[in-house]
Amino acid sequence: MKSKLNIVKIGGNIINDEVALTSFLKDFSKMSEPKILVHGGGKRASEIASEMGLKPKMINGRRVTDKANLEVVTMVYAGLLNKKITAILQQNNCNAIGLSGADANCILAHKRIVKDIDYGFAGDVDAVNSAFINVLLQNKMTPVFCAITHDKNGQLLNTNADTIASEVAIAMSGLYTTELNYVFELKGVLSTIDDKNSVITEINLNKYEQLIEQGIISEGMIPKLYTSFNALKKGVNKVKIGDASLIKGTNKLYTTLTI
Amino acid sequence: MKSKLNIVKIGGNIINDEVALTSFLKDFSKMSEPKILVHGGGKRASEIASEMGLKPKMINGRRVTDKANLEVVTMVYAGLLNKKITAILQQNNCNAIGLSGADANCILAHKRIVKDIDYGFAGDVDAVNSAFINVLLQNKMTPVFCAITHDKNGQLLNTNADTIASEVAIAMSGLYTTELNYVFELKGVLSTIDDKNSVITEINLNKYEQLIEQGIISEGMIPKLYTSFNALKKGVNKVKIGDASLIKGTNKLYTTLTI
Repeated sequence: MKSKLNIVKIGGNIINDEVALTSFLKDFSKMSEPKILVHGGGKRASEIASEMGLKPKMINGRRVTDKANLEVVTMVYAGLLNKKITAILQQNNCNAIGLSGADANCILAHKRIVKDIDYGFAGDVDAVNSAFINVLLQNKMTPVFCAITHDKNGQLLNTNADTIASEVAIAMSGLYTTELNYVFELKGVLSTIDDKNSVITEINLNKYEQLIEQGIISEGMIPKLYTSFNALKKGVNKVKIGDASLIKGTNKLYTTLTI
Repeated sequence: MKSKLNIVKIGGNIINDEVALTSFLKDFSKMSEPKILVHGGGKRASEIASEMGLKPKMINGRRVTDKANLEVVTMVYAGLLNKKITAILQQNNCNAIGLSGADANCILAHKRIVKDIDYGFAGDVDAVNSAFINVLLQNKMTPVFCAITHDKNGQLLNTNADTIASEVAIAMSGLYTTELNYVFELKGVLSTIDDKNSVITEINLNKYEQLIEQGIISEGMIPKLYTSFNALKKGVNKVKIGDASLIKGTNKLYTTLTI
């Protein structure tokens, strides 16, 4: 039987709040099974870009990563946040190792092909180095991935953290029974946006399509769920969406996705 | 017989110049023996600190790392530079992995104890995780260290890159025949500062003391040589100081240190 592997992705609101982040990392350290952490950016990148006089470039509401902004996200994601998180995990006796996709060629990507919009240095994932990640896990280490990848032609790329979590989970599914956990500020996917407790506890593919048709799941949630179902189709055993209490195992209120 | 391991430290002037850095990394990638790269900061950290409105804090001509400046060096050293270097090495088929001292608890340090001057978040090295570094080397990987360490209490620390190179070389000397290479803009230790070819090809401990007495070696060089002799005393087999051509093996003009 395969061992269980938890892949946990944390988003902006947990990273932005120092107290919430420290508390989450303490709980994460206590998870006894092999685990991988993936973190997004948070607002610090925007703050620093602004301090450096850069303005966010948006096209149709989506961020464009030009050269100057790529420098900022590389600094903030792979430097400031990744090393801060790693140091706090080490403090909690979790043997963490912070990685970008360039390190050990862990996550190979290509610059997104320009169709209508040129997103600049945005990367779409091609391959995950599951063999090396497994070497780390076998040595009882916890990989911590930031949202930076590379193209093996010397170019770093900004890549969506939800996608990285999903691709890493898919790649590790050959070796482990994988559980992908998306941790954010809400208790799960909500049926009523104003009611924080209106968690839809189980969503399958049919229900997902119904929810989109009914307009119940909103803009930001659609790509997250799309990525999650893609992971399930490609071998990930379980996907859960919920708040920070999800990883403590005490929370009974969260969303489970099934196909 | 022990295998040979090269530890190469590159300094500011190679990092500041994009063309020089790319050229150096191409040559470094070709070194066939197991190898470790250590890089310093370069002027980009000062530029970014200045863009963010921070002023360098100096006491008696030495830099003090306050909280805001620690954020900047963590971003620039562990993020921007470390990942850029790693991506270029990967491009050159060198399986590099960028690391801070916090990653896998590679380099444990403590905040420098305040005597006369409080240097802030400056770290002095206590231990190097040679076992894990060896796992990487045995997997034909090339560790790339930036000048950031941690104290295992969640605190990142700014640590001199020359010292990191020396401490890593010392720690690996139990397992490998180690050669420590300090690569910078000069061809070696010069006897006449204005004559770039006046390289002193060999310096032993006696000569080192003579050169200091005679005022021939200058301020910046004294700690570099002190660190080098310390490495030799603690088991490092060879220390060389020279310019980027040193690692190509074609350069006959460089300084070798012996005890």
